[in-house]
Amino acid sequence: MQTTLRIEDALQTAIRASQGPGAPPLLASALHYAVFPGGHRIRPRLCLSVARACGDGDPLAADSAAAAIELLHCASLVHDDLPCFDDAPTRRGKPSVHAQYGAPLAVLTGDALIVLAFETLARGAANSPQRLATLLSIVARAVGAPRGIVAGQAWECEAAVSLSDYQRAKTGSLFIAATVAGAAAAGAPGQSWSALGELLGEAYQVADDLRDVLCDAEELGKPIGQDAARFRPNAAAQLGVQGAKNRLENLVRNAVESIPPCPGADELRALIQAQTAQFAPTKLALEAA
Amino acid sequence: MQTTLRIEDALQTAIRASQGPGAPPLLASALHYAVFPGGHRIRPRLCLSVARACGDGDPLAADSAAAAIELLHCASLVHDDLPCFDDAPTRRGKPSVHAQYGAPLAVLTGDALIVLAFETLARGAANSPQRLATLLSIVARAVGAPRGIVAGQAWECEAAVSLSDYQRAKTGSLFIAATVAGAAAAGAPGQSWSALGELLGEAYQVADDLRDVLCDAEELGKPIGQDAARFRPNAAAQLGVQGAKNRLENLVRNAVESIPPCPGADELRALIQAQTAQFAPTKLALEAA
Repeated sequence: MQTTLRIEDALQTAIRASQGPGAPPLLASALHYAVFPGGHRIRPRLCLSVARACGDGDPLAADSAAAAIELLHCASLVHDDLPCFDDAPTRRGKPSVHAQYGAPLAVLTGDALIVLAFETLARGAANSPQRLATLLSIVARAVGAPRGIVAGQAWECEAAVSLSDYQRAKTGSLFIAATVAGAAAAGAPGQSWSALGELLGEAYQVADDLRDVLCDAEELGKPIGQDAARFRPNAAAQLGVQGAKNRLENLVRNAVESIPPCPGADELRALIQAQTAQFAPTKLALEAA
Repeated sequence: MQTTLRIEDALQTAIRASQGPGAPPLLASALHYAVFPGGHRIRPRLCLSVARACGDGDPLAADSAAAAIELLHCASLVHDDLPCFDDAPTRRGKPSVHAQYGAPLAVLTGDALIVLAFETLARGAANSPQRLATLLSIVARAVGAPRGIVAGQAWECEAAVSLSDYQRAKTGSLFIAATVAGAAAAGAPGQSWSALGELLGEAYQVADDLRDVLCDAEELGKPIGQDAARFRPNAAAQLGVQGAKNRLENLVRNAVESIPPCPGADELRALIQAQTAQFAPTKLALEAA
């Protein structure tokens, strides 16, 4: 089955389970709203691409890992957009969850998505319990404290921020989970795939920084100039646009070179080069064309 | 090892793991603050009591289930106390997490505790992967949508509330998880322990309703009269104090009678009668004396 279909199917199945009998109607609606329609689904695509490169020996486990990672990413967007953080009115081109449903339901939607991610893992890896323990640890480590995305967001509450800890936790950790879990779901040793996730996470961060200074809000689907407005570090502001563009290209090259030997290495290399081209803002892509 | 020590040890181990290298200091501090010192630890005590009654065949798995359930309970308290919900200034006799650390860190503390609960399960059940899948499903179902504690809290955002759905989800679900997971951790069939959890959860809810109308804020460690102030259903308001007291006694009697045959049934019956006596507010206990 095509990657996009596998991801959307796995996410639909998860969300439907959370909307079962007895669910409060507004929460059930907000859960769907927070996940569909999605963005580029970069993390679950990466997870399934690595699983496929490693032979895709357990597609159900790979699908559940990919869906869990996307659900956790969606949860982090819902909570990051809250009035007490970014107070973002829009996300993915529509009102953010708290703008549409109010802050209380946005808090609960994020909470329920986090739980649903782990429930999804448990369902998908039911036939391979040993793999479940591995996947659960990989995914949980990428999200919680001390170094997951929640910790990354918490760095924004500190007076002194360790930039590398901040970015590695806030963005890198879920990319690392995507590659490591993709390999582990296929029964391959996950840790050798950590570098690929880390480098792609950093590349995505640089591309995001470029978008924040180059795009208009309509293209981005969320407010622009947020890093400067919130005094957040931004690679394009630090290195200049050309410097950040060079950095992005280096990171992608290193990422592609880091791919461990595996049955589908060539295909994966091509795929990553094509997908990372999507990272860059339209304005840069047009200039490069 | 004594129950209290097992629970506090398991919780300390979990919190220490979340405070490892790279953790943002304020988040690390807030995580400890949210869990220690605890309340009565009723849910993890119940979990370990059931595990012991079933032979306690895998103490590490039982400890991790008990700790996970308490971490999730703490997470729900932190989020329920937020300004957008109850805006509670105090909890367990000290400033609530958001009063002490601000709302952003309180949101993240709750998130990190949810993730930590699942990570704790993964660590504790590492030696029995098949049991991990069972425990993970039991615990996740008790917390997320459609019928876990997050769904229970979401009923407060609905115009029309199904009282039984609300109370079963908000309070009952985690008590059910405590008994079912306690049995499952010991290798016993969990589902036959569901009735005990459900009845004790309802008993606790009635006792909590009594406390809300009878106690003073100092005894309770949090604001009183919150149900009336927030138009929440309250058994003592609906049945009168004596009616609610009778209901509480009936529920405890039925709970004790529901205990399935197991090696430690007699001891568990005595323990539950002693523990449920602690549910009742001091004022009632003194009147009964």
